[in-house]
Amino acid sequence: MSAALLDELRAALGAAQVLTGSGADGYLTDQHRRLTGRALAVLRPADTAQVAQVVRLCRQHRTPIVPQGGNTGLMGAATPDDSGRAVVLSLARLNRVRAIDTDNDTLTVEAGAVLAAVQQAAREAGRLFPLSLGSEGSCTIGGNLATNAGGTQVLRYGNARELVLGLEVVTAEGEVWHGLRGLRKDNTGYALRDLYVGSEGTLGIITAATLKLYPLPQAQHTALLAFGCIHDAIAFLGVARAGFGAGLTAFELMSDTVLGLIAQHVPEQPLPLALEAPWYALIELSDSEGEQHARDRFEAVVGRAFEDGLVSDAAIAESLQQSDALWRLREEALGEAQRRDGRNIKHDVSVPISRIPDFLAATDAALQARFPGVRPVAFGHLGDGNLHYNVSHPLGGTPADLFAHEDAIHELVHDSVHPHGGSISAEHGIGQTKRDVLPRYKSAVELDLMRRLKAAFDPLGLLNPGKVLAPASLRLHEESPHP
Amino acid sequence: MSAALLDELRAALGAAQVLTGSGADGYLTDQHRRLTGRALAVLRPADTAQVAQVVRLCRQHRTPIVPQGGNTGLMGAATPDDSGRAVVLSLARLNRVRAIDTDNDTLTVEAGAVLAAVQQAAREAGRLFPLSLGSEGSCTIGGNLATNAGGTQVLRYGNARELVLGLEVVTAEGEVWHGLRGLRKDNTGYALRDLYVGSEGTLGIITAATLKLYPLPQAQHTALLAFGCIHDAIAFLGVARAGFGAGLTAFELMSDTVLGLIAQHVPEQPLPLALEAPWYALIELSDSEGEQHARDRFEAVVGRAFEDGLVSDAAIAESLQQSDALWRLREEALGEAQRRDGRNIKHDVSVPISRIPDFLAATDAALQARFPGVRPVAFGHLGDGNLHYNVSHPLGGTPADLFAHEDAIHELVHDSVHPHGGSISAEHGIGQTKRDVLPRYKSAVELDLMRRLKAAFDPLGLLNPGKVLAPASLRLHEESPHP
Repeated sequence: MSAALLDELRAALGAAQVLTGSGADGYLTDQHRRLTGRALAVLRPADTAQVAQVVRLCRQHRTPIVPQGGNTGLMGAATPDDSGRAVVLSLARLNRVRAIDTDNDTLTVEAGAVLAAVQQAAREAGRLFPLSLGSEGSCTIGGNLATNAGGTQVLRYGNARELVLGLEVVTAEGEVWHGLRGLRKDNTGYALRDLYVGSEGTLGIITAATLKLYPLPQAQHTALLAFGCIHDAIAFLGVARAGFGAGLTAFELMSDTVLGLIAQHVPEQPLPLALEAPWYALIELSDSEGEQHARDRFEAVVGRAFEDGLVSDAAIAESLQQSDALWRLREEALGEAQRRDGRNIKHDVSVPISRIPDFLAATDAALQARFPGVRPVAFGHLGDGNLHYNVSHPLGGTPADLFAHEDAIHELVHDSVHPHGGSISAEHGIGQTKRDVLPRYKSAVELDLMRRLKAAFDPLGLLNPGKVLAPASLRLHEESPHP
Repeated sequence: MSAALLDELRAALGAAQVLTGSGADGYLTDQHRRLTGRALAVLRPADTAQVAQVVRLCRQHRTPIVPQGGNTGLMGAATPDDSGRAVVLSLARLNRVRAIDTDNDTLTVEAGAVLAAVQQAAREAGRLFPLSLGSEGSCTIGGNLATNAGGTQVLRYGNARELVLGLEVVTAEGEVWHGLRGLRKDNTGYALRDLYVGSEGTLGIITAATLKLYPLPQAQHTALLAFGCIHDAIAFLGVARAGFGAGLTAFELMSDTVLGLIAQHVPEQPLPLALEAPWYALIELSDSEGEQHARDRFEAVVGRAFEDGLVSDAAIAESLQQSDALWRLREEALGEAQRRDGRNIKHDVSVPISRIPDFLAATDAALQARFPGVRPVAFGHLGDGNLHYNVSHPLGGTPADLFAHEDAIHELVHDSVHPHGGSISAEHGIGQTKRDVLPRYKSAVELDLMRRLKAAFDPLGLLNPGKVLAPASLRLHEESPHP
């Protein structure tokens, strides 16, 4: 039966676009290199019609489909299981920009376009597409939408969901929903668009999107600020939101531990401030007027906060080079320092901003009580309440010692997030990695509604099965007590 | 059986909160006074637990439920049918502000709170809740969310859907989904929140919401600008978006016909400009710095557009009184002028901004060809592509003559919207009024997905049946050709 399917797929796509054997290897391991699956084949359709045809053929053969964009996800959503029954459907060849409409401030692009290429296409049209994240050089817009990607500009522009107006989606039946509307207001029925966004390929396969564009800022200003305590950082966030309005486009928090790791492990990246405060933030002002106004405004707001004692130290970038250096600190040196320090246990959580101080104090204390000496490496998008609360091994210990307790540490952190009104996955999604812990933090009512959605949109369970939710026949952990 | 249900409802809510006879009358007629239904009773629960209890009792008795907020909807979504079988469930008594969190910039409020009271609660906390629309003095936040309300600030802040972070919802089974999260990032499953928003009470009953707050602007500046053609108005929208950034909070288009009607019928409202151009726009700049900066910025951007010939005339408000007078023109005089001119046929449509000129030209021409002399009264939220394209009777004719062709005129306008990539309901929803025309403009694929959602969330079809979609057993127009 699978041989017959392969023959039909080769006839539909051309044999060169049906990869098996070693040709498929690059698609079967996840970004973290912690998960490797197997697949009947990797399929590389050329356009939406071919995607729909693939889905119909797979449906006839009851063959599961794992959609894949740039394969940069962190939760294993794009990696097949090890049964070898599924096909991986790569959207990589659907990468055309279909239209740019500058009067409407929209860009219509296919799912496989790399995010950096989408940003570039917008820039060439004199517009900003603001979605920005570490993997932008290889992640695809389809994957960004399927996982509702976040990144560093969410504070101003929202998550991927807020940046899309319309979608084209292939349904589980292999039909095409032509929802590529370039409308900012459309109240003609249920929010299918928003439902597909963030569904990780389990409800339908996104093949194209109409995205929102924004004016390019005339000037940007960045600084690294020091705060005497986390409460001051939060108070200054409020000051900056009021003072800069929507001009505040980044507020990236880092603890002294984080900057200390950079100082220790990445000496080629100089720190612009003395390490004398517990908390730091990289902030960015995007200005619609110009360089001088950005500078004046920045100095007025930050200067007043400095005089008020809210900011204890500040390094303000005086040039584009200095600004780039500050961003490198956050975007590159931070990751590199953690790698050189030894692999750590990562979390992507969010809590209401007002509860961050309590969350940090409670979680730090619980960790030290149970795993003395572990080092919390806390940073993230403060303006979104999104913390990457990573846990590194005790000094003198090893990553291997730490990872022996990986599940327990995840559970401790997530068990602390939950009573603080938080989320155990702020921007990375669920995939397969967090699937079986999700029921611990979701009510039975919500899980039931999610299962109904899955059953309604994919009654045969062929779209990325086992991601987000356990397959219907298994329903792992369904009876878990809800804490 | 209905007597037994009424007894149980009285026991649950108290007899005073189960209205029958003339006590129910105010809840059975829609805002436009064009639809009147009947109901077994009008129920006024006090809290979420009572709402859930009502749903469970109605479910046991297989009794349909029509949720109702401020009863200001324009599509009849909150009005029961004339069978008298349904209950109307008024959320009006669930009107508490549950929490305000200024560090997190969120406000949690119950569904029955009046929008103006929500705005006021935010203002008292030093924050802005930006949703703003004509009926804000009586519409409720629950209704705003259930219909994904728009209004005048969408350009900057988005529709109601973009303004909500979390929801509390009573499901069709009478269970409570506790989704009141105050998180700007949460990727732990399907977008239930976004699905309930805009579903017009057909998938669940919203009982509370956690809303986003914003800083209050430091200053606002308004002007009425004149444009020599619609293309110039669109070009200036781009200039204003680039020049003001997110400070551009309103761009309300009005045709010369619209201002002419005001001049003719509302002489107590003076026009600040000579009526010599075909198009006008009320624009508003909200500034995070202060009065002087707002004024300087405004004059720089508008002044340059004036010199470039993009703006042909301008009345810039020099005081709060002048600004209020401009807004009164748009918010009050415009409606009053239409009323005094005689009832007209209203449309709430959107098209991509770039296609507005073609849409207007094509629709005006088609109307004149078929109904010579009718007067298009076009105004709306240009920045959102949202036009209220109303049609008034020919001079010398009467509204009654016009309304003899009501269905044909609706169809002509909507048939013009569709090929321009537009929506037949930008911000007013579907309800019962547009339900049976929707299948003409939606693909079979989309309607089928919507029906699956309805069946998944409300398998017995008791939540606001016959709104948005025809009841499953009827499926009117299902076979209509999709143009």
